[in-house]
Order: sequence, then structure tokens, then C-alpha cells
Amino acid sequence: MAVYPPPPCPIEDRIALEDLATAYCNAVDRIGDIDGVLAVFAPDAVYDLTGFGLGVMEGHAAIRAFYAGAFPTMAGNAHYASNFALAAFAGDTASASVHVHAFSKGTDGSLMEVKVRYLMDARRDPGTWRITRLSLELLLPA
Amino acid sequence: MAVYPPPPCPIEDRIALEDLATAYCNAVDRIGDIDGVLAVFAPDAVYDLTGFGLGVMEGHAAIRAFYAGAFPTMAGNAHYASNFALAAFAGDTASASVHVHAFSKGTDGSLMEVKVRYLMDARRDPGTWRITRLSLELLLPA
Amino acid sequence: MAVYPPPPCPIEDRIALEDLATAYCNAVDRIGDIDGVLAVFAPDAVYDLTGFGLGVMEGHAAIRAFYAGAFPTMAGNAHYASNFALAAFAGDTASASVHVHAFSKGTDGSLMEVKVRYLMDARRDPGTWRITRLSLELLLPA
Repeated sequence: MAVYPPPPCPIEDRIALEDLATAYCNAVDRIGDIDGVLAVFAPDAVYDLTGFGLGVMEGHAAIRAFYAGAFPTMAGNAHYASNFALAAFAGDTASASVHVHAFSKGTDGSLMEVKVRYLMDARRDPGTWRITRLSLELLLPA
Repeated sequence: MAVYPPPPCPIEDRIALEDLATAYCNAVDRIGDIDGVLAVFAPDAVYDLTGFGLGVMEGHAAIRAFYAGAFPTMAGNAHYASNFALAAFAGDTASASVHVHAFSKGTDGSLMEVKVRYLMDARRDPGTWRITRLSLELLLPA
Repeated sequence: MAVYPPPPCPIEDRIALEDLATAYCNAVDRIGDIDGVLAVFAPDAVYDLTGFGLGVMEGHAAIRAFYAGAFPTMAGNAHYASNFALAAFAGDTASASVHVHAFSKGTDGSLMEVKVRYLMDARRDPGTWRITRLSLELLLPA
């Protein structure tokens, strides 16, 4: 969990890591762009949705399968990401959290709203930061 | 539409462009400060509200007229801007998107809420980034 | 109130000040971590909640007492902070604003939602920015 002040980190990496968390949300909100979602994850990334009772995905193939199933059920998404906080930085690995206020409208007309904190581990793969682990916890009971 | 990783961009410009998108929202939320709104737009800016069925404004005079009509009808505004994503950067021009979760309370007691993505083109006018084109699209049907 | 363009400011300080405002929100959202809350405030900080009809706290002891009373009544918090805007910068002091969309669920089952602007003064205490004054105003009537 992030504390203040955040750990020392070059400003370019601080911004790149925030952009990475944002890029995940924006990719999901484009609905249908699975390659865009996978671009933010390292090939061996773990996406842990046990905070939602949805299990754990390991690696690109599992994440691809999840969104291949989920995107066709979505009519509209809005994942508002804010409150970026760097929690750890070690040159080529880092941990951070963001707050996300997420809305998802289903093709069946349903509307889901959640208020969560995403916890992100990231690694610098040649030149680019990628998510190696993503999990979430509820800020408010649903 | 933004993809990951974002295009290379000096960190000062990356932040200045996010601050520009924010400045538009903050100016609108001050209600009444038309000069503050115009300060974020280039003189020849196009503000395209066809995403809302509201037509296209071209240039400061048209934008001024729009807000001169709109501000007196507003009792309170909150445009929460997040998810900044750089889409293109060419030194003195750039494109980016932000998510906006907007609330507007009318002097008539009405409350409007929209979840949108703003698309912004910007140009570096002597020393300062200004919006040259702003448009929006719904993230969720209203 | 912030205007555009923002005052000149080294990029590291611009980001550190945004991280400071975020750190306050994140500390409050951790519920129970009073030391984490105090870490963002200078020892002589003033926290002015007259915008909520809640009076003014002066100094760490008063802020500690406030959260010692408030945290046990909270079941969940989500303070979404965005729209950072630098308003003044003078090397070792600065002023800025953020928008906050805040939700608080009480242990009694109540749910509070507010849309506010935080106004923050900050000072660079040896190496680290701390809040010296924090106040807020409603963006929308509750």
C-alpha cells in the first residue's frame, strides 16, 4: 500500500507507469480491441480477479480468452482511473496503485458500477513498461 | 485513438498537454469565466459538439457566444478529467484523449450526468499549448 | 483559482505536488492509518472544513483527533482526485487545486457523496512537500 512520500523514481518512469495503468483502462473502454489490452501486459502477466470472485488469469492466452468472452457482452465501458501512487521502484520493476471508478453497460441493458483500487506490478521490458500483475480490491462495498 | 505505448514526447510537453485538457474542464467548472475558457483554445480552434447534437463552433467568437449563453443556465459544474493518453506528438502539434465524468446542475434544478471521452488536438503557440480541436464521444449511452 | 497556463514550475515539483494531493486522498481511503494521514501535513498545517460546516483544525494533534473520531465511523471511502492545477509556485511554497469526487460509506450503512474542489497550500519541508493548508468548496450543491 502506498505511503507518503513515494519512493524515489525518475520522473519519466513515474509518468510512464501512470500511463501504463491508464492504458489498461482505456483499452478496456475501447471494447473489442483485445490486442490493445494485451499490449499493456507482459506475456507472463497474472491478472488476479479474485477480488471480484472471478479467478486468476495467467499469461496472454488466458487474458485474451477472458476478453474474447467479455467484450461481446459489453455495450459501453467507462473506467475512470485516478489517484496514481507509486509504492515501490527498483529500476526495472515497480509497484503502484490507482483508484478506478468503473461503469459497464451490458448489451442486455444492465449497468454495473464499482469503486475499486487496482494494485499493479510492472516490469520494464525492452524499453517499455508492462504489467506483470494486476489485482483489485473494493474501496466501497458494491 | 490512443494505443500503448504512447508516442515519444518530452516529459514537459506530456504534462503540459494533460494540464491543458484539465484547464479546459476547470475553466468550465468555474462558471462565468469566459476569458478563462478562451485561454485554453487557439484563436482558430474548432469545438465540435456534434457528439451531443449541439453543432460545431469555430473560433473564439463562436465559443464565447456559446458560453455566454450557457453559463447563466448553470448552477454548478463538475468535470472530472482523468485517463490522459497521448495519441500523437510532432513537436509543435499533438493529439490526446481524456475521460471526463461530468455533472452539471442547472439553475432550473435539473441535473445532467455524462460519461465521455474528449479528443483533443493541440498546437504550441508561442510558448504555450492551446487546443485547436476538441470533440467528444459517449463512453456509455446517457 | 487556477488559470491557464499554469505558473512555471520544475516538472519534478509539479508531479510531487500532484502526488501530495493524491496521497492525502489515498491515506483517508485506507481508513485507520492516521499516521499516513499526518504524513502529508506539515506539523503546523491548517485543515479548514468550514466548507462542510465542520470547523478548522490547526496542527497535527487536532487533525489526529479528528480522524481518531472519524475513522471508526467509516466502512469504506473512495476519494477520486483529478484535475490537478497548479495555481502558484515560489520555489519552496506552492498552491494548487484538485477536483475530488468522494464517497463514504458509514458503519451505520449511510452513504455520502460529495463533488468538491480542494484548495491546497504546500511547503517544501526538508526534501518533501507537505500540506500547510487544505480547504474545500462544493462544485455542486450536495
